[in-house]
Order: sequence, then C-alpha cells, then structure tokens
Amino acid sequence: MLLAHRLPAACPSRVVLDHVTSRWGVLVLVALSDGSLRWGELRRTVEGVSEKMLAQTLRTLEADGLVDRTVAATVPPRVDYALTELGHDLAAHLLPLMSWIVDHADAIVGRDTARP
Amino acid sequence: MLLAHRLPAACPSRVVLDHVTSRWGVLVLVALSDGSLRWGELRRTVEGVSEKMLAQTLRTLEADGLVDRTVAATVPPRVDYALTELGHDLAAHLLPLMSWIVDHADAIVGRDTARP
Repeated sequence: MLLAHRLPAACPSRVVLDHVTSRWGVLVLVALSDGSLRWGELRRTVEGVSEKMLAQTLRTLEADGLVDRTVAATVPPRVDYALTELGHDLAAHLLPLMSWIVDHADAIVGRDTARP
Repeated sequence: MLLAHRLPAACPSRVVLDHVTSRWGVLVLVALSDGSLRWGELRRTVEGVSEKMLAQTLRTLEADGLVDRTVAATVPPRVDYALTELGHDLAAHLLPLMSWIVDHADAIVGRDTARP
C-alpha cells in the first residue's frame, strides 16, 4: 500500500506526525539527539521557544514515550531530559532529513527572494 | 558544529523546516513521491486538506523549487503537479522518517491512551 494512503485523516499516524513535525517538537528532538539536556540548556539550544511551548512540547514527547524526564534529588532538584530508546530510533530517521534541510536551506530561500 | 546549533531562530533553515514539516507540506510531498498528480487526485490523497490550504501549500512548495506545476493546453486545461529533482532528493530523506512514523504510530498513540 502506498505510503500516502497510510496517512488517512483520523489515524494515529497523523497524530504522531503532528507531534514529531510540530515546530518545536522537531527542534527539541534534534537538540536531545546530541545527549541529555537540562531545562535551561534546552531553552538556549531551541532558540526562540517560550517557556510555555517548551513545557508543552516536552509533555507531549514524554507522553509519546520519546523523551524521558529524570529528577535528581538534589537541592534544588536537577531535571534532565533525554531521548528514550524509541526517541533515539526516531532521531536516527529524523537527522538525515534535518541535515538535508540545513544544507539546502540557503539555496531554497535564496531562490524565493531572488524572484521578481 | 552540532546540528541543533545550525537551526538558529532567524535563519533560512528554519524557514525551509517550516515549509517542509508543515501539516500539509509533508503530506503533499509524500503524495507526490509516488508520481505526479492532478489537483483532484491530490485533494483525495491528502485526506482532510481544504482547497485553500492545498493551494497555499502548493504555492509555497513551488516557490521553494520542490514542486513543478505543468499546464497542458487542453480544453479544459489539465494541471499536473510533480516533484522537481530537488523535491525528489528531499523526498528520499523524508520517506524513511514517514515510514517509521506510520510503523510506530499505533504503539505510540496506544501508549498515550492506555495511561491512567
């Protein structure tokens, strides 16, 4: 069956697609693919994200089983975010696409702005 | 340089990322990866898209040089949409991710709804 027909409107694949390709979802997954990060590190790495959107994105990715949240019993508590095994598996499929986008972005956007 | 740091807020990579991973952008690219389609075929394949959003998505992908629009001089004119060479190159990086999502969607969403 063609891939396009495996993405009908009311199916789980569309829900997961929305989470993974949401503006901040994809950037959080890319950021964590280099290793676990604390809240403040994520905020700086995912440039432009608000506190609210970062919290919401992390909750969604946690509920999906893609991100783990670990709280260390220090004072103050230290909270780390990391990809789960499933998250790493997803990242392995996401990173080649992201590298392609980064490598071709200048040419694509330059093309747009060069138009009359 | 880490991939996450090659996606700063005001850069071309973010613009292209938004186009490619937009809700309808990704589904249109997947649909066209199987071959060129006419407007009505795209409307049916990308289930749930409105006329307005399909038109807007196609205009963006055309301006990015990812999709070609061909008008045949028939009566009525026949309009076909197809991936460009750049679009096919992108699709080659997008399809493995989409297949992964389709294959894992049930487990991920099932996990969410099984939660207390």
